Amino acid sequence: MTYDEDSITRLLVIANVENMTDSNKINVDLILEARWIVPVIPRNQILEHAAVIIHQGIIVDLTPIDSARSKYCAKQTISLSDQLLIPGLINLHTHAAMTLMRGLADDIPLMPWLHNHIWPAEQQVVSERFVRDSALFGCAEMLAGGVTCFNDMYFYPQATAEAAMQAGMRAQLGLVILEFPTSYASNADDYIEKGLLIRDTWRGHPLLSASMSPHAPYTVADSTFEKIITYAEQLGLGIHTHLHETKAEVAESIEKHGVRPIKRMANLGLLGPNLTAAHCVHMDDEDLSLLSAYGSHVAHCPTSNAKLASGIAPITQLSNAGINVGLGTDGAASNNRQDMFAEMRMAALLAKATSEDATSIPASKALEMSTINGARALGLDDQIGSIEVGKLADLTAVRIADVETLPCFDPLSHLIYVCGREHVSHVWVAGDLRFERSNQLSGLFANIEPNELKEIALLWQSKLNQHKA
Amino acid sequence: MTYDEDSITRLLVIANVENMTDSNKINVDLILEARWIVPVIPRNQILEHAAVIIHQGIIVDLTPIDSARSKYCAKQTISLSDQLLIPGLINLHTHAAMTLMRGLADDIPLMPWLHNHIWPAEQQVVSERFVRDSALFGCAEMLAGGVTCFNDMYFYPQATAEAAMQAGMRAQLGLVILEFPTSYASNADDYIEKGLLIRDTWRGHPLLSASMSPHAPYTVADSTFEKIITYAEQLGLGIHTHLHETKAEVAESIEKHGVRPIKRMANLGLLGPNLTAAHCVHMDDEDLSLLSAYGSHVAHCPTSNAKLASGIAPITQLSNAGINVGLGTDGAASNNRQDMFAEMRMAALLAKATSEDATSIPASKALEMSTINGARALGLDDQIGSIEVGKLADLTAVRIADVETLPCFDPLSHLIYVCGREHVSHVWVAGDLRFERSNQLSGLFANIEPNELKEIALLWQSKLNQHKA
Repeated sequence: MTYDEDSITRLLVIANVENMTDSNKINVDLILEARWIVPVIPRNQILEHAAVIIHQGIIVDLTPIDSARSKYCAKQTISLSDQLLIPGLINLHTHAAMTLMRGLADDIPLMPWLHNHIWPAEQQVVSERFVRDSALFGCAEMLAGGVTCFNDMYFYPQATAEAAMQAGMRAQLGLVILEFPTSYASNADDYIEKGLLIRDTWRGHPLLSASMSPHAPYTVADSTFEKIITYAEQLGLGIHTHLHETKAEVAESIEKHGVRPIKRMANLGLLGPNLTAAHCVHMDDEDLSLLSAYGSHVAHCPTSNAKLASGIAPITQLSNAGINVGLGTDGAASNNRQDMFAEMRMAALLAKATSEDATSIPASKALEMSTINGARALGLDDQIGSIEVGKLADLTAVRIADVETLPCFDPLSHLIYVCGREHVSHVWVAGDLRFERSNQLSGLFANIEPNELKEIALLWQSKLNQHKA
Repeated sequence: MTYDEDSITRLLVIANVENMTDSNKINVDLILEARWIVPVIPRNQILEHAAVIIHQGIIVDLTPIDSARSKYCAKQTISLSDQLLIPGLINLHTHAAMTLMRGLADDIPLMPWLHNHIWPAEQQVVSERFVRDSALFGCAEMLAGGVTCFNDMYFYPQATAEAAMQAGMRAQLGLVILEFPTSYASNADDYIEKGLLIRDTWRGHPLLSASMSPHAPYTVADSTFEKIITYAEQLGLGIHTHLHETKAEVAESIEKHGVRPIKRMANLGLLGPNLTAAHCVHMDDEDLSLLSAYGSHVAHCPTSNAKLASGIAPITQLSNAGINVGLGTDGAASNNRQDMFAEMRMAALLAKATSEDATSIPASKALEMSTINGARALGLDDQIGSIEVGKLADLTAVRIADVETLPCFDPLSHLIYVCGREHVSHVWVAGDLRFERSNQLSGLFANIEPNELKEIALLWQSKLNQHKA
């Protein structure tokens, strides 16, 4: 513990904490007393019997429980005596609005899957209402699984923003851009224009931000990429795209453009520290060098890549090349869970299996990938991604006290290899409790009624049924 | 539904069902009315609103709910209106007594992991008492995850048998055989002798059976294998061993014996339809041909193989070669879950990722692997592994009604890609309810007290702590 008195005091002032002279204790909003805390920064640290002090949504102190009790007077103190407290998980690549298409068509090759099931279903149902409903479902699933922030890309991002606001989740919403027409927009310029206008609907909201989201190199023309780069620069936005997901994508680019997609993106000027590339499954040495040299980020989606038979991303090599790698679930149509616990475990296991090195992507690294690395990719690492004084209190508590999680020799390795999302007991976003589950399987959301979710599922399932495999 | 009246009547007679003349209904013990049933045999069938009729532990009918209500009078009827009913899962390779070593040492290469952590820990703690306690923990975890039967291999199998009897689970207990001394036995002959004597402690128990369990080709001598083959033949026992788990094992065999382990086993006469080989990660064409030609079975352990960086078993090729492949968790020291839902999902995903074919190991096949294929390997496929009239009522109900499992277009694909073990609501072994969970995270066992498990965890964690990584 290296937080000196001065820096804490400064932060308490920033957070507008008043000193109560009568008790000599400092008034704060919330104290979380945890059995274990993994702050992520500093690395490989596990604090025992420690408390996080939260005021006005900000982490103002991190200190042993005893010291917290003697120093602070909180409106609320929550005991997490069986829990590991971690930074809220960041899902670095998803399409939350596809959640209602979960399991619509499985065990089908990519092209028939898209052409015969997903695209016809999208064509029929996708509307602002569908996106709101389906994204709300996705938000609920993510929150209940300890996710506090997601990086999204889909049509009608204003509707996904609405869902995130209701759930009380942090989100970076991709202003999706394609060349071909959909119900949402008619051509690339229309996508760009709509996206930039729509962004105003949530501008200034403390939990929401936007990115320019060209869908993929094979659906976006060079001239459109050039416009996107200009807008991203002018508006200070990140860029979120799919890249090198399949062998076919790479082959097609070589045929059409004479170079692999990453090289084409480099030539166009798309690579940079504001780019998050989802997938990056098929990578040669030059691809690795380019991403590394430009400081771009990768959203590794191991389950989706496996399920669609795209392959296994060379995550050990990506990490070794110094590329910042976060984790994503991808949409529920190809996963079929919005479950970052499953992704952390899958990432750690696949890295070991493919590198034949049992030390590759250890538990601590898997957690970094789904917290601070995700925050870095989103340009939010000064605010979230670790439990540090001065950061926002986006936090997830994970219960380690049941037959399947005992005994516990190392809570961090348990988090990755033993725990599931069902062990998440509390989720806070900016200090607000957004989800709580005691010993119940289905917990309670602060602002989503279980019946609302059931009605949404029922309504849309009947409409989507005709597209099922 | 192809069960004719005659065969049902015959089975009812076998099960000693009395006909109640006053109501014209047949008296039975139990009716399970399910939203969905996947019987596994016949393949790819999903029954909706169907009932399983159980009498004296045996499935005596499988019929639409309406017809069940008009035909049978049951002591108990259980409504599974939100559930998918499947055959109880069969864990084809584990060491239940290693459950208390869960997470003792992770992210460490195989040899330091064994030499510095697992073996010293085993040397210190393994006793009949430890095995009983740890296996009971493992049984509880497995039951709560829908597993009704496990194929085990460890020291003091009588203690694992005791745990299985308390839990009310079906188990095939390996009489483990090594060349080197442990607290359990002093040399190969001693292991064999002890095993055969110990087997008498559970002989005749309806849930328990035994196998000869030479640990692995690299720990057992040719002369011992020959004795094992003789005993297995004389006593009609299966053989359960580790085989081709690591590259090093194959290389060592070539160096010491001039042939790969599978070839050596073939030369010794070990291969046959009564052999279950765990792992089979590193396989060449001859290995595949030999296993296929001899009709041996493979226990695929995808998570353990990944976690220990052994590699990924070529499960698509094994299946294509007509080899019967079941699924196993392996022990909790290398997984770290006794969770067959995770293995089914992992098997289906890895097969797709490595074969680059999204249709490889579809959901139906993943369920077959963990039910009927496991039963075949254990020589129990006439009794368990599918929901068929005449088979024992080993059954697992899985709830599909929560935010993370809705909507549901196909309950079978949901089972593999969406559900987790936490969605298991009921588990029956031979018609007896052994585990039940309503909306609670931690359910209730018929014959294991939660406090007993907590005390066990506490006691042994303190003894094992010194060996942790």
